[in-house]
Amino acid sequence: MREPGRRNALEQELFIGIDIGGTNMRIALIDDSGRILQVRKVPTEIGLGAPQVSRRLAAECRTLMDAAAGFSGRAVAVGLGAAGRIDAARGMVVFSPNLPSMKNYPLADELEKSLAIPVVLENDANVYGIGESWAGSGEGIENWIGLTLGTGVGGCLILGNRIWQGDGAGFAGEIGHMVVHPEGPACACGSNGCLETFSSGRALKEGVARAVAAGTLREGPLYESWKNGSLTPETVYRAAVGGSEPAQALFDRMGWALGIALASLFNVLGIRHAIIGGGVSAAWDRFIEPLRESLTRHSGMFDPKEVSVVRSTLGDDAALLGAGELARRTVRKSRKQ
Amino acid sequence: MREPGRRNALEQELFIGIDIGGTNMRIALIDDSGRILQVRKVPTEIGLGAPQVSRRLAAECRTLMDAAAGFSGRAVAVGLGAAGRIDAARGMVVFSPNLPSMKNYPLADELEKSLAIPVVLENDANVYGIGESWAGSGEGIENWIGLTLGTGVGGCLILGNRIWQGDGAGFAGEIGHMVVHPEGPACACGSNGCLETFSSGRALKEGVARAVAAGTLREGPLYESWKNGSLTPETVYRAAVGGSEPAQALFDRMGWALGIALASLFNVLGIRHAIIGGGVSAAWDRFIEPLRESLTRHSGMFDPKEVSVVRSTLGDDAALLGAGELARRTVRKSRKQ
Repeated sequence: MREPGRRNALEQELFIGIDIGGTNMRIALIDDSGRILQVRKVPTEIGLGAPQVSRRLAAECRTLMDAAAGFSGRAVAVGLGAAGRIDAARGMVVFSPNLPSMKNYPLADELEKSLAIPVVLENDANVYGIGESWAGSGEGIENWIGLTLGTGVGGCLILGNRIWQGDGAGFAGEIGHMVVHPEGPACACGSNGCLETFSSGRALKEGVARAVAAGTLREGPLYESWKNGSLTPETVYRAAVGGSEPAQALFDRMGWALGIALASLFNVLGIRHAIIGGGVSAAWDRFIEPLRESLTRHSGMFDPKEVSVVRSTLGDDAALLGAGELARRTVRKSRKQ
Repeated sequence: MREPGRRNALEQELFIGIDIGGTNMRIALIDDSGRILQVRKVPTEIGLGAPQVSRRLAAECRTLMDAAAGFSGRAVAVGLGAAGRIDAARGMVVFSPNLPSMKNYPLADELEKSLAIPVVLENDANVYGIGESWAGSGEGIENWIGLTLGTGVGGCLILGNRIWQGDGAGFAGEIGHMVVHPEGPACACGSNGCLETFSSGRALKEGVARAVAAGTLREGPLYESWKNGSLTPETVYRAAVGGSEPAQALFDRMGWALGIALASLFNVLGIRHAIIGGGVSAAWDRFIEPLRESLTRHSGMFDPKEVSVVRSTLGDDAALLGAGELARRTVRKSRKQ
């Protein structure tokens, strides 16, 4: 790792925050106060293999490093959030249903070699938690449950104002892999009926395919977008808003499963706050009522009126800001040593 | 609260630990080193109402206070574990499916008035966690999940070597009310398919009744004990050991549900240890294999070989010792103030 500390007095220190999702990667240039100066977005195309994804990421980072001069600054570190079980010390994805070819690839090391500034890797949902705690809906809340609805479902726990890391084995907060219904659909992780199989972007798309197969969806824009291969979670959302019953049924199911998982967690953790973010949380108005009904139905030992489930105020920016903050902390920490 | 600190130099300080279950109450005299000197057991008979239960408890405590002299000692405080949502500050059970008439009854105050020594109330599963951490299977393990299988299913979380108390609202660790199967049996808490509806003593008894109703259990000792009203979890256990398929099916289901709940919690908490106690854990050899199979089946993000699920080494004594330790801590703390 090169010494990231030396700086020109005229230059401000900037940070690069990266959010690698199953579908897209977003790369942002962020200043010390948490302002996003520039964002880039490219498809992940994980099927091309980890080295190719890494090269593309490095190229995007270099573009932002060049752009830093335009803000009288210099990018001094990269923070990177990726879905899955992460070995932060080795900078590797150990296991990720949504980024299979990333397994055991030394992503942080490769980027660091290529960019010559420190690169640190964390689970994407933890990065979201850092962002929301720092500047979003989690500010000032000591204990909360974080969920990110994207291609999959990520999760984090903030306990005592800190990201809960469990035993340090790299898989804390995997709320997407809580079993919601043991006879539910097969999950990418190998289990069945995980929260992710009901409440993710992928679940929406697979749900449409199932509705077509079952003959309950035979026409209309949703059917057409399935047929021509342009189906996205946004398509399903627009169809639901437009009155499509099969589309709304998928959001009902999404909210139902979220309500069960959150009720179980509120009972187990004895805490009262949850914050939901991620791209698919944009469909909030479609799933929040079914979520609240399900939460009340399964509340068990807590009073449903006592708990709060809110939407991320930072939206997509939570993960980017969190990744930037992670980069910032890494630089600060290395200077203290 | 009277001053508990004055003591005769010749007398040793002793503590009373109480475990109030849905079926039985056990009351123990415990010394400073955690040795149980004497135990008494009486039926809870919660249907008689809280004042009656409280009077019976006070009488049992007085018997042990008298017995203390025989150990050259004096009982100086009472620790009390009860199932349900507890307001420890007010010494009350706020809500308990298994102790309904205890709701909002000032149990700690009433006992304290009657016995004239300090009485402190905690959730029974937390008390079990204190006991196991102090002197049982939890010794030296920083993070673990505790389960107690009794009339219901209790739970606790030990995070960073301490009982996790959540937001302090009195319901942390309610693992028994995690939803394992949303179409499962109705639970005493008002929800459906909670862990408790599959993995408790009550679930075993209700399972036998269902097998009789369905006609799959028509004869034999298990049927007879159901018919004559003497059915207990022990009866079901003995029947399973004796080869009864309907009885073993209930333990298969118990293990299956425990495996799902623990897999979900290992994924969410990123920790790797669970300790199972409570009276019904005596049926360990009947449910541990189905539990392990289910845990592996639903492991999701963790490697099932990396996690450990063990039986409480203290057995029934964990809750008594934990309650005694709670009493001891209370006395120590009041002296420091």
